[in-house]
Amino acid sequence: MNRDSLTVAVVGATGVVGRTMIQVLNERDFPVGELRLLASGRSAGQTVSIDGRTLEIGEAVPSAFDGVDVALFSAGADVSRELAPAAVAHGATVIDNSAAWRMDPSVPLVVSQVNADDLEGHAGIIANPNCSTMQLAPVLMALRDSVGLERVIVDTYQSVSGTGADALAELEGQIRAHVSGEPKQSSVYPHPIAFNALPEIDVFLPNGYTKEEWKIVSENRKILGLPELRISCTAVRIPVFVSHSEAVHVETREPVTPERARRLQNRGASSATKSRPSTRSPLSP
Amino acid sequence: MNRDSLTVAVVGATGVVGRTMIQVLNERDFPVGELRLLASGRSAGQTVSIDGRTLEIGEAVPSAFDGVDVALFSAGADVSRELAPAAVAHGATVIDNSAAWRMDPSVPLVVSQVNADDLEGHAGIIANPNCSTMQLAPVLMALRDSVGLERVIVDTYQSVSGTGADALAELEGQIRAHVSGEPKQSSVYPHPIAFNALPEIDVFLPNGYTKEEWKIVSENRKILGLPELRISCTAVRIPVFVSHSEAVHVETREPVTPERARRLQNRGASSATKSRPSTRSPLSP
Repeated sequence: MNRDSLTVAVVGATGVVGRTMIQVLNERDFPVGELRLLASGRSAGQTVSIDGRTLEIGEAVPSAFDGVDVALFSAGADVSRELAPAAVAHGATVIDNSAAWRMDPSVPLVVSQVNADDLEGHAGIIANPNCSTMQLAPVLMALRDSVGLERVIVDTYQSVSGTGADALAELEGQIRAHVSGEPKQSSVYPHPIAFNALPEIDVFLPNGYTKEEWKIVSENRKILGLPELRISCTAVRIPVFVSHSEAVHVETREPVTPERARRLQNRGASSATKSRPSTRSPLSP
Repeated sequence: MNRDSLTVAVVGATGVVGRTMIQVLNERDFPVGELRLLASGRSAGQTVSIDGRTLEIGEAVPSAFDGVDVALFSAGADVSRELAPAAVAHGATVIDNSAAWRMDPSVPLVVSQVNADDLEGHAGIIANPNCSTMQLAPVLMALRDSVGLERVIVDTYQSVSGTGADALAELEGQIRAHVSGEPKQSSVYPHPIAFNALPEIDVFLPNGYTKEEWKIVSENRKILGLPELRISCTAVRIPVFVSHSEAVHVETREPVTPERARRLQNRGASSATKSRPSTRSPLSP
């Protein structure tokens, strides 16, 4: 791998996340030699315009990964399950944004500020977590390393961007329907999301949590290296376009003053999230 | 007090809550003989139309309570603080929807399904709690009486209706601004509420909680008769027009199966709120 100039593939390049990946690669001056944009057969052949350049979308098939150094996958779990091993076989290191590989014991699940060490000895696929986990893990890490985590409760306020471009269009359409007095049309979500709160993100699992909630529970446990961590979650979709919020309640093992907790949090979270300053007393009355 | 036909005053009759009170009195065939609608001097003289009848708004002054049996107050804490004792002196029983009297030890704070017994021996003023407390107390009561409450964490998803008519108009205006591509104007809230989540309801107190959050903590303790209850809260305003939601996490004193918790909840909450069925395992992994 020539680190001065990498061939980077983005799988799912036409999606909201894929397009943001490309934008961030540009913003950060990531040393991209060749940028290979890939998507399902349906989108292949389309073009996207990036910084004035027009790039064609190629079809995401195994041979498309020939010569690719890093493949960023964000085209859903099915595509990742099928294509990531093929990309690895063709020599790429896969960074997978889907849920396909996250809980595989042989795949590191990494938030760069928290557990970069887990990257050692990866076998070609590196997973990154669910969006709600990603922004929470650095905050929890700071407490884990200083005062210990006894129990964590997370309630989310998740934006529609997390579902994808179709959902953003659905919210926009419902807003316009509201203004023009038409009925709101829903197909992405089971109910209107405009001016509503939906405590049902993804399907319900037999344990009573939704799949989204269980991701937050199990992915945080894995990233933090605390498989027994007592953590619970209610995940709620709200009518916000972009940016997830979370209300997080933590019981620590050792006492911690609000001031110290805030200092630790700001340090841990500096590059990942912005916390509302909290000077709250502990739970006891 | 002639229970066959009561003279009922509604103070704050032009507000969102006042108008809903009048509507509910009608819907429930409450035995209203005379309905006296009162408001501040600014609104006095206006008329409102109810079921085809046009009623004039009188000015909320002490003498307006002559002959009133029940006075429903919803015109803010300042009005209640000033006028409720005067209404009592004129012979009325005040049911106060503001925060003015809730935490006064001589005033019962009542949710009818939970602590109607506390009405005994009231001295003229009866307080009802904050909207977020009102819908939560019956659920907590059911657990308190069966398995005991060890700890409660509540995160709210509160609608704009709780702030009042100005806020509903502000949300509507911001939605229309979004559609027409104009900047969003905010004056009721410190930031746009449309397509946003505001974790700041009312002012911050020295203890780090907002006033709204502290109401939920202290009012639940009083209504449930558990002054030492370990309860914490994050209160968040979201862009929903009407109806508050809450994510509630309870640690019980005795073990309880999800099925039993659900049965107890549905019994306790039947007339107050509708819970999402939950079959979740307890927090321990």
